Amino acid sequence: MAEGEEVTREERLARAALTRVVEPGDAHIGRRLRELGAVELLGRLTSAHAGREALRGLSEHRVESLRRRAATADPVRDLAAIDAAGGRFVVPGDIEWPTQLDDLGESRPLGLWVRGRADLRRWALRSVAVVGARACTPYGAHMAATLGSGLAERGWVVVSGAAFGVDGAAHRGALAVGGATVAVLACGADVAYPRGHAELLRRVGEQGLVVAELPPGAHPVPSRFILRNRVIAALTRGTVVVEAEYRSGSLVTARGAQRLGRFTMGVPGPATSGLSAGVHELLRGEAVLVTDAAEVAELVGEIGDLAPVRRGPVLPRDLLDPAAARVLEALPARGRAVTGPDIACVVGADVDEVLGRLYELHALGFVERHGGNWQLAPGAGRRPNARRGGA
Amino acid sequence: MAEGEEVTREERLARAALTRVVEPGDAHIGRRLRELGAVELLGRLTSAHAGREALRGLSEHRVESLRRRAATADPVRDLAAIDAAGGRFVVPGDIEWPTQLDDLGESRPLGLWVRGRADLRRWALRSVAVVGARACTPYGAHMAATLGSGLAERGWVVVSGAAFGVDGAAHRGALAVGGATVAVLACGADVAYPRGHAELLRRVGEQGLVVAELPPGAHPVPSRFILRNRVIAALTRGTVVVEAEYRSGSLVTARGAQRLGRFTMGVPGPATSGLSAGVHELLRGEAVLVTDAAEVAELVGEIGDLAPVRRGPVLPRDLLDPAAARVLEALPARGRAVTGPDIACVVGADVDEVLGRLYELHALGFVERHGGNWQLAPGAGRRPNARRGGA
Repeated sequence: MAEGEEVTREERLARAALTRVVEPGDAHIGRRLRELGAVELLGRLTSAHAGREALRGLSEHRVESLRRRAATADPVRDLAAIDAAGGRFVVPGDIEWPTQLDDLGESRPLGLWVRGRADLRRWALRSVAVVGARACTPYGAHMAATLGSGLAERGWVVVSGAAFGVDGAAHRGALAVGGATVAVLACGADVAYPRGHAELLRRVGEQGLVVAELPPGAHPVPSRFILRNRVIAALTRGTVVVEAEYRSGSLVTARGAQRLGRFTMGVPGPATSGLSAGVHELLRGEAVLVTDAAEVAELVGEIGDLAPVRRGPVLPRDLLDPAAARVLEALPARGRAVTGPDIACVVGADVDEVLGRLYELHALGFVERHGGNWQLAPGAGRRPNARRGGA
Repeated sequence: MAEGEEVTREERLARAALTRVVEPGDAHIGRRLRELGAVELLGRLTSAHAGREALRGLSEHRVESLRRRAATADPVRDLAAIDAAGGRFVVPGDIEWPTQLDDLGESRPLGLWVRGRADLRRWALRSVAVVGARACTPYGAHMAATLGSGLAERGWVVVSGAAFGVDGAAHRGALAVGGATVAVLACGADVAYPRGHAELLRRVGEQGLVVAELPPGAHPVPSRFILRNRVIAALTRGTVVVEAEYRSGSLVTARGAQRLGRFTMGVPGPATSGLSAGVHELLRGEAVLVTDAAEVAELVGEIGDLAPVRRGPVLPRDLLDPAAARVLEALPARGRAVTGPDIACVVGADVDEVLGRLYELHALGFVERHGGNWQLAPGAGRRPNARRGGA
């Protein structure tokens, strides 16, 4: 559907149902989806009359399996479930849809189940993935946490997969400095997996975003982890791998990023460490060696066409979400810096909500962040903004 | 002087004297040397009648200082000293002169004082530099030793600067597997510097080569270390840096290698280690990340034009040094492998001498090495070799 057109309830329901029917990243279904549209595709899978030729190219066995799933899909219930979890289902055509994902072509997600307050699209504009081994060394955990904190402090959104090891350390690093972080799961956005990260995922859902291709309640299976990685790669400007063995899933994310024209980066480690062997292999190819957040930010900050301008906003003020606009209004003129809680007081909203908005405004170039302080960016003053053009 | 022409005694004496008069790498003197020749240049520095204009471009103070040194130079004594130390003075035009050094242009060494049995030129053809921090970590020492052994086992000659830390570990690694190694010193080839490496230098002199631009007895001063590094860079096919802080001398060697079109490589380490920071900086540029000897050998082995062919010799047999030819004759036909001591028995020479010759023959493609065993290379059989052309 065309950008800007509103997504119909029927379309949203069909896509929600399809996330329960089709496995993530199925390019074959993706082609049929593009030809038929979600409503028609779902119709053919549920109508008793649609013959095999209606889904040509799929084996009978395959169509049967899809039909069985389609018969039990209940998108109304799933949408109610994500709503109850404080979330929403974002689909292509929605303002919040991260259009970078369109680079995935026919394996583009059908939609994303999202928990958290921030705007996914705006956050993704200024995001970096930090991924790596589950069984990482203390060095790997330290580097992931340091990168997570350092990137968050520089206004970057830290995206990872919420796994044990490097992923968890990266999320925690960002959370520790009050920064923005997004967990992309290989199960439902309301499922605490891994179990031991239930508390971490609760915090990410409150302070950041939890995102999933799979519908509420869905469980992870091995193939889903690999397919989830393509979403992490596509969503972000670049992927940093911190410790990875040969053939690890993190290398899949990194190579996916490379294919999509994103930056791929690797943190070196001892040549004697099997947990750095995969990263070193990557670094012997196209990936760039990085040793701290400043180097990552310098690299991914280079892409002028995608990057929000450093000084001054990229969106006209009147296109801002009303809640974000209220936070922007609350910032003092003349660039005086204030803290998130200060602004929350002025706006009369809760601090987490306000911080989410501040990160959005940061991604759009309206505000600057200096440690725990926020101020209007030069050129983002109160005069009516006459410039036009999307983010 | 032209390649192949014999170097006159007068020329050799003049160059020997000049190594005591001129600091290594002085491009200004190098230009005058090219214009005037060594004999004439030395003559102008020693003749009482030669006026200032005879050495135009140099300050009066500078000429005076050179004259003072020239007045006390005694090349006959120096040549006797290197002879007594079991060495020789190799100059451009000698068969043993490593012509790679000519890439240094006007800062090419005046000559090289060499101790040890092997042929410097032939060894240099198949050599790699392994350099790095003096105050290295145990990790750095381990990597240097492992690379030294692994490269030597693959038939590569390990070149380094004999300093504490990485250099020493690289030499020791090569020696430990009975391999070939060259120490390039920033003092006289007969001076044990650093003192603590006296025993190491003795072993390198016996099993490998000790090389210096400075005449016998000369002491190292800081500027000489940096200038020595250009010789290491130019002599070898590539330079591997193992641990180096920002602005370290090893980076100078590596950048020198880069400018000369040699391969530059770096061994990664923890991003948290200041001793790897310099290497990582290099790896963010043109240098290639390497984690073991196989990767280094694969990279430097690629240069077809410089590399001896892998199968069969690159020199006609009848151009071989008689001692090397005797060792070659002693190898059994049909590729049967024998050890160095076996051959020493047959030839009736000492084992170190024979090993030196075997490495020479290896560099020239006549023999292959498998662990401690040596065999004729395919195509290096006993039939008269009809091919022509230099190495």
